[in-house]
Parts: sequence; structure tokens; C-alpha cells
Amino acid sequence: MKSKDNRKEKVKIIPLGGLEQIGMNITAFEYRDSIVVVDCGMAFPEDDMLGIDIVLPDITYLEENYSKIKGFVITHGHEDHIGAIPYVFRKINVPIYTTKLTMAVIENKLEEHEMLDLVRREVVNYGQFVELGDISVEFIKTNHSIQDAAALALHTPAGVIVHTGDFKVDYTPVFGDAIDLQRFAELGKNGVLALMCDSTNAERPGYTMSERTVGEKFEKIFAEYANSRLIIATFASNVDRVQQIINCAARFGRKVCLEGRSMINVIGTAIRLGYIEDSSHTIVDLDTIRNYPPEKTVLVTTGSQGESMAALSRMAANIHKKIKIMPGDVIVFSSQPIPGNEKAVSNVMNELAEIGATVVFGDTHVSGHACQEDIKLIYSLVQPKYSIPVHGEMRHLRAQAALARSLGIPSENTFILHSGDVLEIGEDSAKIIGKVQTGTILVDGLGVGDVGNIVIRDRQRLAEDGIIVVVMTLEGRTNELLAGPDIVSRGFVYVRESEGLLEEANQTTYDAVMKCLDYGITDWSKIKLEIKDALSDFVWKRTQRRPMILPIIMETTL
Amino acid sequence: MKSKDNRKEKVKIIPLGGLEQIGMNITAFEYRDSIVVVDCGMAFPEDDMLGIDIVLPDITYLEENYSKIKGFVITHGHEDHIGAIPYVFRKINVPIYTTKLTMAVIENKLEEHEMLDLVRREVVNYGQFVELGDISVEFIKTNHSIQDAAALALHTPAGVIVHTGDFKVDYTPVFGDAIDLQRFAELGKNGVLALMCDSTNAERPGYTMSERTVGEKFEKIFAEYANSRLIIATFASNVDRVQQIINCAARFGRKVCLEGRSMINVIGTAIRLGYIEDSSHTIVDLDTIRNYPPEKTVLVTTGSQGESMAALSRMAANIHKKIKIMPGDVIVFSSQPIPGNEKAVSNVMNELAEIGATVVFGDTHVSGHACQEDIKLIYSLVQPKYSIPVHGEMRHLRAQAALARSLGIPSENTFILHSGDVLEIGEDSAKIIGKVQTGTILVDGLGVGDVGNIVIRDRQRLAEDGIIVVVMTLEGRTNELLAGPDIVSRGFVYVRESEGLLEEANQTTYDAVMKCLDYGITDWSKIKLEIKDALSDFVWKRTQRRPMILPIIMETTL
Repeated sequence: MKSKDNRKEKVKIIPLGGLEQIGMNITAFEYRDSIVVVDCGMAFPEDDMLGIDIVLPDITYLEENYSKIKGFVITHGHEDHIGAIPYVFRKINVPIYTTKLTMAVIENKLEEHEMLDLVRREVVNYGQFVELGDISVEFIKTNHSIQDAAALALHTPAGVIVHTGDFKVDYTPVFGDAIDLQRFAELGKNGVLALMCDSTNAERPGYTMSERTVGEKFEKIFAEYANSRLIIATFASNVDRVQQIINCAARFGRKVCLEGRSMINVIGTAIRLGYIEDSSHTIVDLDTIRNYPPEKTVLVTTGSQGESMAALSRMAANIHKKIKIMPGDVIVFSSQPIPGNEKAVSNVMNELAEIGATVVFGDTHVSGHACQEDIKLIYSLVQPKYSIPVHGEMRHLRAQAALARSLGIPSENTFILHSGDVLEIGEDSAKIIGKVQTGTILVDGLGVGDVGNIVIRDRQRLAEDGIIVVVMTLEGRTNELLAGPDIVSRGFVYVRESEGLLEEANQTTYDAVMKCLDYGITDWSKIKLEIKDALSDFVWKRTQRRPMILPIIMETTL
Repeated sequence: MKSKDNRKEKVKIIPLGGLEQIGMNITAFEYRDSIVVVDCGMAFPEDDMLGIDIVLPDITYLEENYSKIKGFVITHGHEDHIGAIPYVFRKINVPIYTTKLTMAVIENKLEEHEMLDLVRREVVNYGQFVELGDISVEFIKTNHSIQDAAALALHTPAGVIVHTGDFKVDYTPVFGDAIDLQRFAELGKNGVLALMCDSTNAERPGYTMSERTVGEKFEKIFAEYANSRLIIATFASNVDRVQQIINCAARFGRKVCLEGRSMINVIGTAIRLGYIEDSSHTIVDLDTIRNYPPEKTVLVTTGSQGESMAALSRMAANIHKKIKIMPGDVIVFSSQPIPGNEKAVSNVMNELAEIGATVVFGDTHVSGHACQEDIKLIYSLVQPKYSIPVHGEMRHLRAQAALARSLGIPSENTFILHSGDVLEIGEDSAKIIGKVQTGTILVDGLGVGDVGNIVIRDRQRLAEDGIIVVVMTLEGRTNELLAGPDIVSRGFVYVRESEGLLEEANQTTYDAVMKCLDYGITDWSKIKLEIKDALSDFVWKRTQRRPMILPIIMETTL
């Protein structure tokens, strides 16, 4: 692949998401007529995106360059790396390449969307190279909080770009091999143009502990609470975590039952593919486990993030159809709240405490992401010319940039990109040469993209102070007031106890309308504006609230 | 105060708030015709209380027993202990007793509400007893994250109840004396009926560090960033924290400027009363500090919780009128996010990182609340017969109950109360004998209590999926359709791109109306119900959204 004048070759790196937040990872690598896309993730909505279910990347750039796209390569099976596939692949249909478990998780998702037959898929092994036009993509074994995670080495005519995906360094993984540090070193030895490395934990000093250390903590908990039912909440996709619970349960003579839709889905897939070992038949279903005394059972459930509809939250709120939390139950949070979920998690813990259950947390979790010393290790093995921190909020990207600087990579060779930046990079130079369209597409129910800024702003305003609707009917020719103005409010004040206020508001509106009609104003938009101004002034003075005011004029002709 | 048969005497403890959340602390102590109220706090709204500014306790019980109330005693000047005073004292006007700085903070608040002349106030010294009917209240020195915090010993004919208020054990406080452990011991030696102890940190093992340790961290930061402007965000009320910044700045030859309304208010009060020492005139105002080079200045600002309108957030968003963050500025978060604020704090940090400022956090804060070992110390000194954990969420109260148990207090002598519980307590027995009315009064703008569950539910629904208003005009006698039905939506879909959907919705509505009119239905509520059903069915099927549907029928008579 190396040409004589490869020093003049350039490749473009174009992140289409994932750099303003954790989530929505999708990056295009472009060399001449070859585009390879790494990952295809969704994001969860920010707090102020009211009513939104998920957030997707704007892929206009890919649609415009459809013919160049040779394939999507996926690093691992988490939602922020695969969640947009069912939406993106309605518009772009190229092959997907990824590892076995990751592919199975993607297939579950495609099946739900009835798209399984539409998408070409190829399972890749570690060490394998996938030739995608002028770019050859190599899959490298890493460790993460889901199995079968891969780093990628993108071999381009301009040089090798190493993309870590989400990773940690686990010398003693529960399943499979440790991260292939030798290959990182070998690539580094041969020369790596750029390293795109996971920044999630770049602010955290030290090393990330092995997943196996969680198993030791489980041992202690199983021993300490030998006489109680155990309910362990964790991430559905953390197959190794569940494996360790199964192992521990088997040793302590307990049966394990899985609860929560995504838990049953993912772990079911992992069992089917041989990623979970349960030769002693420790896992049983919910109906079977009823036959065992509580202290001989473990329930493994979703809801470790306090998600209101997840199994654990329903148990805590006493609205789960089949499982009732009892005083004396021990609930283990084998998780860390994702930033923003702290309050929700705490609320669930309070509900559990109120029932009289014992809540255990803080000890049975390790991160799936590399901390500072791990990141330094990868840099030291790969020794890239350029550093491009990825996967993180701005503070995380900057923290990794500082690490790169501390390892001797000059500041001018470190690029903190924004989504849409076109970074052109080669041995001789690297610079941002342009910007392509990016953005967020909001999904609300069945609607993809039909809720935008205007709708969100309206929802925010409605959420804050409610709405006052003003309706009236005018005679079409004479402009005579036939009915109204009537006012109806929702979410503004408790109507029954605010009759005086609403009567005055009605009078204010009536006065504004009559003033318009007396002046002979026939332009309805002017009348509406007068109503809005008069009513919002009145309401602000009396309540210091700013409800949305929606005047509607109907016309009839007698 | 001891009578011969005091073993038969009983006192009632009636928390009116503060036990379902952190915030809204207010507790009545009642012996025969004497009621003493401890604290009078507000709470901040939960996430789902849309549009609500603050939350107040329902004080119906106090209003019904107004004549018995001898006074309010306040433990310290934080909002969750004093914030409801301006609202409660419009209905109940009895004297307030508290320490000097606490009183000054309350007076600032009363002045804002133009109530200063209406409320009787008496400043109390540590060690002083206030005679309030049959109850004598003793003020005991403690330490906390605001100066002049007090524990209370309520001497009643039924025995002594010790209420710690919010406290920590600080052997080396920045200002004033350490907590009066000797007095706690003396009271314990003489016999304490019940201990009501701060539970905030009851889940945290170990000891809470001295506020003074933060000063050492500041020293390091001032040394490390000698060439940068320093901007330090912290709680406005943490006078000792600000004192340590002033001390450090003086030693390093920097000038200090305070920014943010509450910072200027509280620290101004502290300076006026002599709780801040600035003999070297380190503090200067914003206009003066412009004359100094950036590296010779420190800005102390509000906004450490990511509050959107606070000074730091406005600086980070580049909308602060007078202060602009520059690349190279060092921003120190001398705080810990209060649960629920993590995301907001992180967002501000990202904005600062984007500008190129260095963000320092995690090191320059200690808690104001006692950890497990400190709590054990207080129990060991006081050795109460009964334990009543206070100030915390359910999980914190339970954690303290577990500590009490570990110290030998029998479970049946530990009471985890709920707001409204009437605990009757004496040497011989203690039990919950009833329940009084409690609840939350929501404040939205000028309205106190005019927003209740119905309004909040409407706001939640409006926030989620918006509203569709359906209007029509009927002839009053013939029921003939004169105008409409028209539909107008807000916060539902982007109207311009959903014309087809909205036309169909219009048709659905029209069909529903005509069906009613054809059947001769004249009951408007039935017509409205038909519209709601037809339209919500249609909308759900097409969008899987549930906007509020608001049919309005107008009547005119021709």
C-alpha cells in the first residue's frame, strides 16, 4: 500500500458526531474515492430536549457522498456506537463489518426494525484486514465493558490511523484474551500517523481495575448476605459482569434469574453464541425460581441507572407485576450512575430503603474505559505523529490532549475536533480544511426529525408556565364579534382557586379586542398581537409567569 | 424543671418537613401549651416540578395551634433552614431566636420581602438558654459550612432532646471555636432523652476533614498557577472558604473581587459583622481590579453548582456583562455538585474547556456534614435513650439508624419519622400517636400555592408532547356548525413539515364533530370527548405521541 511519494498523500478524517458529547459516535475516513465509516451511534437526549426519545446524527455528508462509501466498521455493541444503524441504513445501504457478538447485537436491533434482510453484514475476526477501497481496516482485540470490542487500524496510502474504540486495558479479562498490546506496539514500531483514543476517563488518574476484581467483591457480598435474597442491578450489556454473578451464585448454591427486557435479550444472545458459560444450569426462569427459598436466589436486573421504566425501578415503586421487594432483601447496584442519572438512582435507593431493603453500592463496579496511565501506555506503544482525542465531552478531550503533551507530542500535532470538521492529514502536514454539515436529528415516538428547535422551545415554554388559549369568532365581512373572547388555560394556575385572576384576564383580553375593533383594525395578526401583549403584560404583573399565549380567531359569515 | 414524676411526662416531636428530602426543615416540639419550632426551611423543586421556583412546607398544623407557639429557633443560615421564613411569617408572627450571623442572613431576607419591621428577633449567644413556655432551648456551638451554626438542647419536663442541626466536627475551624463537645458530653452525662442528628453523610465512612485543609489546597493552586488569573467558584454562604481565599491571595500578592449577587450579599454581611478579616484590604471591587494584571487577581464567584443564571455560568456562556473568560484562565470549583446538579456543572466545565480555560476541581472542598465516625462520636457523648435521625433522604436516615444500632441503641428506640408523624416521647415510652397535615406548597413566580398537582401534571404532559387545540363555533339554538373545527398545535410537530399529518388530523376532527351533530348530540362535553378520543387515537397511531388535546366550543346566537 505504500507508494514512493506517500509523504504527499493525505487522508481526511471527518467526525459527524461524538465530539460534543458522549454518544452519537460516527466518523468518516476518506481517501480519494473511498469512504469508510467507523461506528454509527445514537445519543440520549439532553435534559432540555423535552419529550425526545433518542438523538441521531445528521448524515447529509454521507448521503451526498454515498457512492464513495465502502462500508461501516463497528468497534463494539453499545448504543452510542450502533444505535443509529436502523435509521441510517434506511438511507445508506452498504455492508457492515464487525466482530461476532457486536454483529449479533446489531442483528437483534435490525430484526426489531424488520430490516435484517436489507443489510449486508460480515463478521470479522481479530487480526483480520477488511479491504474497503483504498483503505484496509484491521481489527485489534481490546477490552471493554462489553465483549468483542475492537480497536481499528486504518491502513491508508497516507499512513496508518489507529482508532482505539472504547477500551480498557484488562490483563485478566473474565472472558477471552487481554487487549493485544503487542499489535499496538508493532504498529507503532512501523509508524503510525495518528492515534484516535478514547477520552472518557482522561481526567481520572491511575489505572482502570480489571473486571475480575468485581468478582472478588461479589464473593464478599454473597458471603455477608448469605441469608437474604440478592437482587443485583447492572448494565444489560455487561456480559462478563453477569458471568461473574453466575459463577458466584453457582459456588454459593444460588439460582440466578434474569429480569428486564434488554437483560434477557443481550444475555440470551451471549449464551447462544457461547460468550456465557453456565454448564451447571445456574440460570433459571422467573417461574422456576419461585420454587427456591429467597436466600438461594439471585435476581439480575436492569435499572441500575434509575431509569423509570426499568425492572428495578418498577420493583422499587411496587408496580412490578411479578416481583415484590421485601424487607430484608439486599439490592446491589453493580454500576456507577452515568452523569445526569445521579438523582434518579438516588430516588430508587430511597424507595428501596423505605421498603426496608438493604442497598449496597459503590463497590461492585469498575469502569470500561482507560484511565490516564492506561492512555499513556497506548500512546507509548503506538507513538503516533498526531493525536486526535475522541469519545468525550470537551473537558475529557482537553484532558487527553494534556496527556499527549506530557508524552512529548507537540501541541500543534494534537487536534481537538468538532463534529463536522474536515481534518486533512498526512506525514507532512495536518490541518482542518473545511466543515461539513452535521447536527442532531431528534426522534420522538415514530417521528424522526419532525421535532426541531421551534417545537422544543415551545415545549420548554409550555413546561415552564403552561398555556393560555384565547378564542373568538368574528363575522367575516363586518368584523363583528360573534363569540368570545374566551380564555382557557392549562398548566398555568389552578383554575378553581384563581377565578378572580382569570376573570380579570378575560376582561383584559376583551378590552384589547374591543380596542382593536373600535379602531377598525381588520388585520387579524395585529389583533392577535394586541391580545398577546395585553394579556402577557397583565399575567406577568400579577404572577411573574410567562405562559404561552395562543390567540385563535375564527371566522364565520352570516 | 424536673418534676418528681417526670417519668410520666411526655413531649411531642412533630416534623413538618425535611424527612422525605434534604430541604424544608421545620419541626415542632410540643409540651402541653408550649410549642417551639426548630428551623423554617424551603426546598428546591424536584426535576418533575416543572416551572416551580421553590417549595415550602404546609404549616396548617402551626396555624391551628398558633396560640401555643412560643417562638422559632433557627440552627443556621442556610436556605433549607431559613428559606420559608418570609412566607411562614406572613401567617405566624412569633419571635425568632438565633445566633448573630444567622440572624443577619435572615434579616437580609426579611428586608427583601419588606418584612423586617414585622418580625420580632432576638440574637442568642452560645451557652444561652431561651425560655419558651415550658421548654427551655439551649444553644450549643457546632461547626458547619456556614459560621454561627448551633445545635440545640431542648430542655422539657419530659427530658432533654438534643438536636444537632447541620454540623461537622472541626477541631481547627477557620473562625471561632470548635464544636462544644464538652457540653454534648455534659448533657449526655446528665441524661438525654433523644438525639436528633444530621444524617446527610451517614452513608460515608470515616471523618469529615477540617475546613482548614482546603486552605492548604488553595496554597498549592496559587503556587502552581502563579501566572494565571484565578476564578474560584464556591458557595456564597461559605464565609470561611472565602476567608481562606482572601488569606491566600494576600500571601501571594493578589487582589480579590467578589462576583454574584448572593456572594456579595452574604460576604458583605460577614464583613460588616466581623466574621471576615481583611485588614490588608485584599478585597477590591470589579472596577478597581481591572487595574491589576490578571495574574495578580482572584475572582470569587457564585455558580459552583452550574446554576444557569449564576455569575460563573454567564461567564462560561460568554453572556456576562463585565467578565470575559480568556484562554489560560484557571477556574477552580471549590465545591461538590449537589446530587442532581452533576450534569449542569459538567456542562459549565465543558464550556470553560472550550474557551481554553483550565478547570480544577475535586480537591478544594470538604463537606459541612459529619461522616459516620463523627456521628458515632456525638452518639457516644450524648448517649441518648432514643435516636431520631433527621436531615436526609430515606437512605441517609436508615444509614444513621444502622449506626445507632451498632452503638447499642435498640432498634425499637430508633425512630425513622415521616413528615407529619406525631412522636410522643418520654422516659417510659415513645411511640407515633398520630399524623398531622403536611405537604408541599409550590411557589411559581408570585404565586404561592396556586400551582398544585393538576397544573404540574398538565405541564408534564405539555412538556412531553405539546398541545393540540381544537376550536369550533356552534349556533346556540340550532347547534349548527358556524366555524371550524380548526386545529392549532404547539410543541407537537414542526407544522411546516407536517402539513399532511395535520390535514388528516383536521379531517379526523371534522368527521368526529359531524358524527356527533348528525346524531343530534347537543351535550358539549360529549362532543368534546368524541373529539379527544378520535384525535388522540389518530395521533397515537401516526406518531406514538400523546399531546394534550384541548377542544374548545364557542357558542353564538344568530
